Amino acid sequence: MNVTVRGKSRLYRTVTFDAPCNRVRLIEQRLLPQAFKIVAARTFRETATAIRDMIVRGAGAIGATAAYGLAQGARTFQGNDRRKFSRHIETVYSTLAGARPTAVDPVNAMNAVRQAMARGKSVEEQQAIALAAAEEFANADVSHCAGIGQHGAKLIRNGMNVLTHCNAGWLAFVDIGSATAPLYAAHAAGKKFHVFCDETRPRSQGATLTAWELAQQGIAHQIIADNAAGHLMQRGEVDLVIVGSDRTLGRTGEVANKIGTYTKAVLAKRHGIPFYVAIPLSTIDWQLRHGRNIPIEERHESEVLGAWGVVQTRRAKGGARNGKRAYVRVANPTSGARNPGFDVTPAELITGIITPAGIFKPTQLWDRRHELGFIP
Amino acid sequence: MNVTVRGKSRLYRTVTFDAPCNRVRLIEQRLLPQAFKIVAARTFRETATAIRDMIVRGAGAIGATAAYGLAQGARTFQGNDRRKFSRHIETVYSTLAGARPTAVDPVNAMNAVRQAMARGKSVEEQQAIALAAAEEFANADVSHCAGIGQHGAKLIRNGMNVLTHCNAGWLAFVDIGSATAPLYAAHAAGKKFHVFCDETRPRSQGATLTAWELAQQGIAHQIIADNAAGHLMQRGEVDLVIVGSDRTLGRTGEVANKIGTYTKAVLAKRHGIPFYVAIPLSTIDWQLRHGRNIPIEERHESEVLGAWGVVQTRRAKGGARNGKRAYVRVANPTSGARNPGFDVTPAELITGIITPAGIFKPTQLWDRRHELGFIP
Repeated sequence: MNVTVRGKSRLYRTVTFDAPCNRVRLIEQRLLPQAFKIVAARTFRETATAIRDMIVRGAGAIGATAAYGLAQGARTFQGNDRRKFSRHIETVYSTLAGARPTAVDPVNAMNAVRQAMARGKSVEEQQAIALAAAEEFANADVSHCAGIGQHGAKLIRNGMNVLTHCNAGWLAFVDIGSATAPLYAAHAAGKKFHVFCDETRPRSQGATLTAWELAQQGIAHQIIADNAAGHLMQRGEVDLVIVGSDRTLGRTGEVANKIGTYTKAVLAKRHGIPFYVAIPLSTIDWQLRHGRNIPIEERHESEVLGAWGVVQTRRAKGGARNGKRAYVRVANPTSGARNPGFDVTPAELITGIITPAGIFKPTQLWDRRHELGFIP
Repeated sequence: MNVTVRGKSRLYRTVTFDAPCNRVRLIEQRLLPQAFKIVAARTFRETATAIRDMIVRGAGAIGATAAYGLAQGARTFQGNDRRKFSRHIETVYSTLAGARPTAVDPVNAMNAVRQAMARGKSVEEQQAIALAAAEEFANADVSHCAGIGQHGAKLIRNGMNVLTHCNAGWLAFVDIGSATAPLYAAHAAGKKFHVFCDETRPRSQGATLTAWELAQQGIAHQIIADNAAGHLMQRGEVDLVIVGSDRTLGRTGEVANKIGTYTKAVLAKRHGIPFYVAIPLSTIDWQLRHGRNIPIEERHESEVLGAWGVVQTRRAKGGARNGKRAYVRVANPTSGARNPGFDVTPAELITGIITPAGIFKPTQLWDRRHELGFIP
C-alpha cells in the first residue's frame, strides 16, 4: 500500500525479498505508528529473529516471511551435495518454525516451498525453485486479500460509517489486509465513507496500526474507546462492522478473533447492523467441531495494567522526555489482571464471511467446503 | 473506609472538616493510586480550587466539599452585621458553585446549608448552624451509601464473580460509595467473592480508583480490559454486574453512566446475568421524559489517544525515568478520536436499582416516587 515518507508517497509490501543481496526486507512494525522504517534480515537466522521479536506480525505476513526465509537459507548453501543440502534445509526450516511455535502460518508456508523444491533435480535448481515458490506464496497472499477487497467493497456505500476492531490490515499480511481490504477497494473505487477504529485494548492495535494504515491511505477515520461502540450504534452512527479472524471454524461458522470482537457482534445484532468477518481461506479450521474447544490464550497481565506510547511533556525537565517510547503502568500498583487474548463469536451473530471466493453465510462454509479449500 | 499508609490501617472519609483550624481536609485523588495524601484547603477559595482542579471528584464528594466550603467561608466572617454577612455568603456561594459549573451536587448541598442558616438569629448563630448543616449533609451522604450497601449486599453470595464498571466507589462520595457499597457490606459480613474491575477506558477509573479501593479493603479482584467482559460472561465467569449512575430518569428508569455501561448491560442481558445500578436518591432526575434527551458530553480526544500512568524503565538512562507520572500518546500521531463520555442504558436491560430505600425495578421508580424523594 501507499506510504508517505518525508513527503514522498511510495508503494510498499509488508515483506519483500531482495534477491541480489539475498535479504528479507521487512517493515519494522514495532516502531509504528511513530516511525516507518524498513529493515533487512541478512541471514535466515536474522529472519527467524525478526519473526520471534515481532518486527513482523500477522498471519499472512509471518507466513510469507518464513517462506522467504527458507529460500534465503537455501540460497546460502554452497556445493551440490544433495544430502548435505537436505540437512541444511532441515536446520533452516526448524529455526524459522521455532521462532513462533504456536503459529501455523510459517509452517504451512514453508511446507508449500519445500513441496515445490522436491521437483528440483539439483541443489541449484532447488534453490531457484525455493525462491520462486516463496514469491508465489507471497503473491498468492496479496491476490487473496485483493479478492476479499473485491467482494467486500460491494458492502460499502457512500456516506457509511464502518466500525473495525483490532488490525487485520495490510501490515498483518503481505499487502492489502483482510478486514481492511474492502475499505481499500471501496476507497480506490472513489467511495466516500468514514471508519471508526476501535482502540482495541489491550495492545491497542486499532489506535496504532489500523489508524496509521487508514491515515496513510487518506481514508477518513476516528479512533474510539472500545466502550464507545455500543453508544454510537444506539445513536445510529454505525452502519457496518468488518473484522478479521485468527481462526474460523469451517464446520460451525464460529470465529475466533481478538478479544472484544464478540462484544461488537452482540451489539451489532441488537441494533440490526450487518457484522462481517473478512478472511483468507487459510484461516479456516476444518477440523474443530466446537468453538468452545478453541484454546483461548491468556496473555501477560502487563498488557492490561498499562500501555505503550510516546511520553508527552510540555517541558523536558527532570523526568520523562518528550518523544521517548515508554510503558506506563496505569493500574493500581497492588492489583493484578486477567487477560484473555481472544474470544469466539457464534455464527448466529455473523451476517457474512467475506472470502477471496465470495461472501458466505457462516453456516454455508461447510456445504461449500470443496470450493473453499477443504482438504479431507 | 480503611486505608493502609506505611503499614498502619486507619479509617478515612473522602472529605472531612477540621473545625479548630477551619480547614476542609481532602484525599488528593489525582495522586491515586500511586500515592495517598491528605491535603487541607485553608480558605473557601482553596476549597473551590480543589473542586475545580479535581483534587476531589464524584457527585457525593463534591457536594459535601462545597457544603463544608460554605461553612468554612461563613466562619471566617468577622463582626455581626447581618447584611454584610449575607453579601459575604453570596461571594462564598458563587465562588464554590463556579468551580464545577455543570455539576448539580455542590449547588444542592449549599442550598441545604443556606436554608438551615436562615434559622439563625445572629451571625454567630448562623455560622454555627452552617457547620452543623454541612456535617449533617456529609453524614447523610454516608448513611445513604450505607443504606445502598445494606440492601445490595443481599445480592452477593459466597463464590460469586461480580463485574464493576468505572468508579462509583467511596472516593466519589463521602464514604462507602454507591456501586461499591454492596461489595463492602458483603465483605464486612464475611462473604467471600471476587470482583472483575473493568479497566474503563478512557480515563481508566476502574483500573486506578476502584482497584485501589478494593485492594485497600482486601477484596479479591482482577482488572480486565473492557473488551474482556463479553468473553468472561460467555464462559460463565460473571454472576452479577453492579454499576453506578450519573443520572437516573425517575420517569423511565433509564440510566446515564460512564461510557461502556450500556455495552455491559447488553451483554448481561444476553447471558441472563443480573444487572444492577446502585444510586443515592439525589441522582434521580424526575423531570426528563426521555433518555435520548440526556446531553452526552463529548470529552477531549486526548483521553482516547493516550493514557496517564507511571513510566516504567529497567534503568533510568537518558529519557523517561521510573516512577514519574506521565501521559503517553498511544495512537497514531495523525489520527483523531471521538470521545462520548457517557451512555444511556434502557430500563429493559436493568434488573434492579439499588437505593437507600430498597431495590426497585427501574420502571417502578415513578410509582414509588413519593417515598423516593420526588419533589413535584
